[in-house]
Amino acid sequence: MDCVILGSGGMMPMPARMTTSLLLRREGRLIMFDAGEGIQLSLKRCGFGIKNLDVVAISHMHADHVLGLPGIMMFRAQCEEPGPLTIIGPPGIEQFVRHTIEDLHYHLGYDLVFVEWNVQARPAAWDWHGHRLIWEPLEHSTFCLGYRLEEAARPGRFDPAAATALGVPPGPLCGQLQEGRAVTAPDGRTIVPAAVMGPPRRGRIVVFATDTMPCAGLERLCAGADFAFIEGMFTNRHEAEALRKKHMTAAQAARAAASAGAHELVLVHVSPRYTRDDDETLAQEAQEFFPTARVGNDLDVYSVPLPD
Amino acid sequence: MDCVILGSGGMMPMPARMTTSLLLRREGRLIMFDAGEGIQLSLKRCGFGIKNLDVVAISHMHADHVLGLPGIMMFRAQCEEPGPLTIIGPPGIEQFVRHTIEDLHYHLGYDLVFVEWNVQARPAAWDWHGHRLIWEPLEHSTFCLGYRLEEAARPGRFDPAAATALGVPPGPLCGQLQEGRAVTAPDGRTIVPAAVMGPPRRGRIVVFATDTMPCAGLERLCAGADFAFIEGMFTNRHEAEALRKKHMTAAQAARAAASAGAHELVLVHVSPRYTRDDDETLAQEAQEFFPTARVGNDLDVYSVPLPD
Repeated sequence: MDCVILGSGGMMPMPARMTTSLLLRREGRLIMFDAGEGIQLSLKRCGFGIKNLDVVAISHMHADHVLGLPGIMMFRAQCEEPGPLTIIGPPGIEQFVRHTIEDLHYHLGYDLVFVEWNVQARPAAWDWHGHRLIWEPLEHSTFCLGYRLEEAARPGRFDPAAATALGVPPGPLCGQLQEGRAVTAPDGRTIVPAAVMGPPRRGRIVVFATDTMPCAGLERLCAGADFAFIEGMFTNRHEAEALRKKHMTAAQAARAAASAGAHELVLVHVSPRYTRDDDETLAQEAQEFFPTARVGNDLDVYSVPLPD
Repeated sequence: MDCVILGSGGMMPMPARMTTSLLLRREGRLIMFDAGEGIQLSLKRCGFGIKNLDVVAISHMHADHVLGLPGIMMFRAQCEEPGPLTIIGPPGIEQFVRHTIEDLHYHLGYDLVFVEWNVQARPAAWDWHGHRLIWEPLEHSTFCLGYRLEEAARPGRFDPAAATALGVPPGPLCGQLQEGRAVTAPDGRTIVPAAVMGPPRRGRIVVFATDTMPCAGLERLCAGADFAFIEGMFTNRHEAEALRKKHMTAAQAARAAASAGAHELVLVHVSPRYTRDDDETLAQEAQEFFPTARVGNDLDVYSVPLPD
């Protein structure tokens, strides 16, 4: 499971940072979070095809998170038989896309499936190739959603000593037990997988959450996450501005991620006012609360390890 | 008068060529032609402020010519007191912009003035700081406009020998004649400017025309132009495709510009299929008909000389 930062900036695309967007790749399939103006350039820079892009999940209806969606859709239409694309997001996302199709007269040649947040009847999660994609409202100047992707649990660890003790010799019978099937041991006993396997192990968890103030929804999303890509838009010097605009400082993001027990924190949605020299300040202020916090950069790739 | 190529590609933004867009700068004021996705990045790369951008003229309602307009408008809203912005273009341009404002909830803080083509009551030209901006329908798969900017005529050349012969000594009286005012010579005669000035000299002419097949409108626009920025999307090898898609080869563009008596030709809207190695082919095929034809590149700056 790889996470590619397509953009790490906030507010508008800049030569040094495109607007915040994350591409998650798992066994060749792709899911993308947010799509600001020009984000297809980042995809082209990393050389990814996007035929296998199944889902684009949008946080909120501000231009720096959604204006690149028509371009992504048209770029994807260049692929051969790309299959349907699911667009998940806040109320209004379908109207925005439909307006651009109507006004710019473009033709996709594949189906669009829209899933808009609906407070009455929202689905709790979608299935994406066996992963659960969960959403949660955040606290911003407009309605905004954060996302959490949970990989399916894996079987527990196989205990070869327990198998031997139960009369199952190393070999094909052990393989069947590891695949979850009961076997008959050479001595005639039936051995069930639970007798030789540890408890199921959780899958990987990745969180994408921007734009928001610190809030309960953010902490729920980040609970025990392996990687949290969350906004750290401002340095402490601009904390009052962060509050007024319902954004976060890097330090606030770090406190939230630490309190939620996230394992890795990557700060995104950095304000365009900052230069590269300010990255160090953002990282240091975050590291007071989350010692391994990092500032994300465009085209960084993070490989998410399997949890023990 | 400088022309900056903000983008030189067709169809979609690519790392090597942003979509075709031209910025024309004259005494600090700016006018821009077309605005595809991400084109604000080119403005930022050249370091231009856009407070003084008065007009954006749009050729047609395809995404690669218009999707960057909301971003340009929002970027301009960051300036202090930017004044109104005029958006000129085909029918539908206002609805596209209004839809994005409604769907993405952005606020500009300055007025927008829309001028849409209307076949019944179209204005023939607008005044832009003393320049005439003229439009003409082209021949494309959708309704498309080409533009021609004509600088105001300058006064004719001053003839110092004629002034001396008429009894006007070198000095302030000559200055007044050059400014277009009649003067009284030391001997009491009234001397009018026409007696000492040549005929008015035409101003500079710049043309922006893409996407189109060769057509009469294109030739009218290019007539005697100092600089013609026109599409040369394909090499001769793809001439059949150019015809089918109602585009032009570089050679067809060159023939049209030569036949219209343009002085300089810069080819833009290059197909994203081509690599840098193909630039040479595009240029060579154009040079058969227009010996000084060039292929435009992003961030190229052309200074338009005053005609004799």
